[in-house]
Amino acid sequence: MSETVSKKPVNMKNIQQIIFDIAKNSKEASIKLSGSPSKQKDDALLLMAKLLVENEDILINENKVDVKNAESKGLSDAMIDRLRLTPERIKKVAVGLIEVSKLNDPVGEVTKMWKRPNGLLVGKKRIPLGVIGIIYESRPNVTADAAGLCLKSGNAVILRGGSETINSNLAISKILREALVECNLPENSIQVVPVTDREIILEMLKLEDQIDLIIPRGGEGLIRFVSENSRIPVLKHYKGVCHTYVDEFANLNMAEEICLNAKVQRPGVCNAMETMLVHKNVAEEFLPKMIKSFVDKGVQIKGCEETRKIVSTVYSVAPDDWHKEYLDLILNVKIVGSMDDAISHISQYGSMHTEAIVTSNYENSQKFLDRVDASAVIINASTRFNDGFELGLGAEIGISTSKLHAFGPMGLEELTTSKFIIYGGGQVRT
Amino acid sequence: MSETVSKKPVNMKNIQQIIFDIAKNSKEASIKLSGSPSKQKDDALLLMAKLLVENEDILINENKVDVKNAESKGLSDAMIDRLRLTPERIKKVAVGLIEVSKLNDPVGEVTKMWKRPNGLLVGKKRIPLGVIGIIYESRPNVTADAAGLCLKSGNAVILRGGSETINSNLAISKILREALVECNLPENSIQVVPVTDREIILEMLKLEDQIDLIIPRGGEGLIRFVSENSRIPVLKHYKGVCHTYVDEFANLNMAEEICLNAKVQRPGVCNAMETMLVHKNVAEEFLPKMIKSFVDKGVQIKGCEETRKIVSTVYSVAPDDWHKEYLDLILNVKIVGSMDDAISHISQYGSMHTEAIVTSNYENSQKFLDRVDASAVIINASTRFNDGFELGLGAEIGISTSKLHAFGPMGLEELTTSKFIIYGGGQVRT
Repeated sequence: MSETVSKKPVNMKNIQQIIFDIAKNSKEASIKLSGSPSKQKDDALLLMAKLLVENEDILINENKVDVKNAESKGLSDAMIDRLRLTPERIKKVAVGLIEVSKLNDPVGEVTKMWKRPNGLLVGKKRIPLGVIGIIYESRPNVTADAAGLCLKSGNAVILRGGSETINSNLAISKILREALVECNLPENSIQVVPVTDREIILEMLKLEDQIDLIIPRGGEGLIRFVSENSRIPVLKHYKGVCHTYVDEFANLNMAEEICLNAKVQRPGVCNAMETMLVHKNVAEEFLPKMIKSFVDKGVQIKGCEETRKIVSTVYSVAPDDWHKEYLDLILNVKIVGSMDDAISHISQYGSMHTEAIVTSNYENSQKFLDRVDASAVIINASTRFNDGFELGLGAEIGISTSKLHAFGPMGLEELTTSKFIIYGGGQVRT
Repeated sequence: MSETVSKKPVNMKNIQQIIFDIAKNSKEASIKLSGSPSKQKDDALLLMAKLLVENEDILINENKVDVKNAESKGLSDAMIDRLRLTPERIKKVAVGLIEVSKLNDPVGEVTKMWKRPNGLLVGKKRIPLGVIGIIYESRPNVTADAAGLCLKSGNAVILRGGSETINSNLAISKILREALVECNLPENSIQVVPVTDREIILEMLKLEDQIDLIIPRGGEGLIRFVSENSRIPVLKHYKGVCHTYVDEFANLNMAEEICLNAKVQRPGVCNAMETMLVHKNVAEEFLPKMIKSFVDKGVQIKGCEETRKIVSTVYSVAPDDWHKEYLDLILNVKIVGSMDDAISHISQYGSMHTEAIVTSNYENSQKFLDRVDASAVIINASTRFNDGFELGLGAEIGISTSKLHAFGPMGLEELTTSKFIIYGGGQVRT
């Protein structure tokens, strides 16, 4: 809460000034950056990739300071693993930047244009949002990933990472900024906040005239803190409590493959399945084999009473469990009397993230698609597909579960907005 | 601050419960409404129009109570005029609802669809936002206008009008709700908050699980209050400080017509021009005639020193004036040395609302269009065209000057969001 990378004491006045200056510089940079050609931005992304790999020794040395601090603070091995940089991880970040350089630049696209009866030609043109603030925890790769997406979409970015990776983050941003300078782009397009006091987040969230959007990435506590204290619009997802509903008309072999994939392929992520809903008419046929497959993969099953009548070895589910985002090899199983019951359950416990149905019935597939309120509704495929890369957005900066501006995976387009452009020939209003 | 329409004292606990119940009912209504066919919504809009006109006596009687209260409180004549309902105004509201019924229903439109290499078919489908809260002042027509737009876009609406029109607002909503019931739509799709204590706004702004979007409509004070206290996303425009830049390559006759229209056609609105910028190379030729035209129309001119050298009779502009949204027959005039100076001035003093250039030079038109950061940038036409009707959106619920979700006039499409719909054939992730 009160460590800083510098040894000097940092008081509130300093903090206000530091973040205000960063935001002001960011705004200025964003104006220049907004008009920069794609070629120049892509060159910078490629140079960043090159420089990160070339300077991997420096990065790893700075990262070692963070790792050492984390060890002395007694952080868990899992936490320490998350913040560690390795040559492979640096390489992966570099490849990510190269991939972003290959994506279409959304800025400048005129998405619509129409003519009014009075001859005015009216269009909507994509423009960058301006300044984006990213508030995140642990993984230092976010520093480069987020900076790359913001740069490509013409936005200046202020990166406020956690104290546990401050040395790594500053080392990464130093390299990224070198590439900006080399490519004649404004250096302040990418800035890491050098102070890690939590107070600086509060000050940052007040700067609505300088910062256009805040994206928090981290645990639910961080996201709620940001959301409750921000005067700047926030794009967020709290959690993914995702369901798969196995309909009475499901192809049960397909259902088994899809549910297994949704749970075990990568359990620690937000689009993994947390609860499986099964129609009562197929439960007896489906559940014994399905649950055996889960258990073989090390999944702990928590079943409703009806489930336990069919497979007596499963644990009993607690009422509270339906709300849980386990992010682990644990799964709730519930038998439902109808698809309407499944939809009601999802409406009550789902997090509007990702919901799937397995069915071979046309009407049920359409009804589920229409009625379920989630950023992605999937028929006959794994919930794991709700992801910017998998859906073809190219890359993503997060998955929004709030409906404003973007709902679902946010790619480069979601980091832009549109302005109206109007071509007249002397029209006045009567 | 503490008047209520009921005579009973309302305490904080009551207030929390009242607004929570309204929001909960609204959420429930929104779920049913989101799937309602266009025909049903259009029938309700037409019936609303009919019932409002048929019941004009009731509406005018209730409105008289508000007018009497306003008079006894000593409100200005202009204020009282704004809240008054007349048969003509009621007719206009009804016509507005009929117009909205004719617009395309945005809900359900699949705006894009593409196939992934693994065969997944991915689409984006428009859905309503859910529950929209409108917080507004004075004009009772907003009650019906906003309710109509929300209904057509499939959203439930909570209307929190000012205390000065509470009786009118309740009478209008009673009629609108009758039409909903008659057309088998959920009655709670439209609710007027019956309590006018300002505390209820604070409680309303906390209900982020029930309300999806807040739109404040009113003075800058109200909008800032809402924006600073809301946990729910807010779509807002603070003010319109709009400029017209008369370039050195302008057709000066066209420039005169455009500038005159932008200032005097309706000075009290946000897209009226507040400052005219003139290139120094045309100032001597352009300004004397232009200023005479303005003065003939009763416009008070505040000029920079250079302007006063050319037309000595104009008032002197104060540094603070460049920031002002006059909403009146007052205009700042400034002579600039270059288009870059004009763009800098706009960047410093503009409100990102509407900015226009008059020029016959291609490069300057494109440069102005690209560089000026505003929700609408206009070449060779009046700033007055930045309006949902004029740009062809059909209707508007406001003009957003924040960049998230919507930037510029907000029509029916801006009252929706998109969810990803994914058609699979058994795909799992590898």
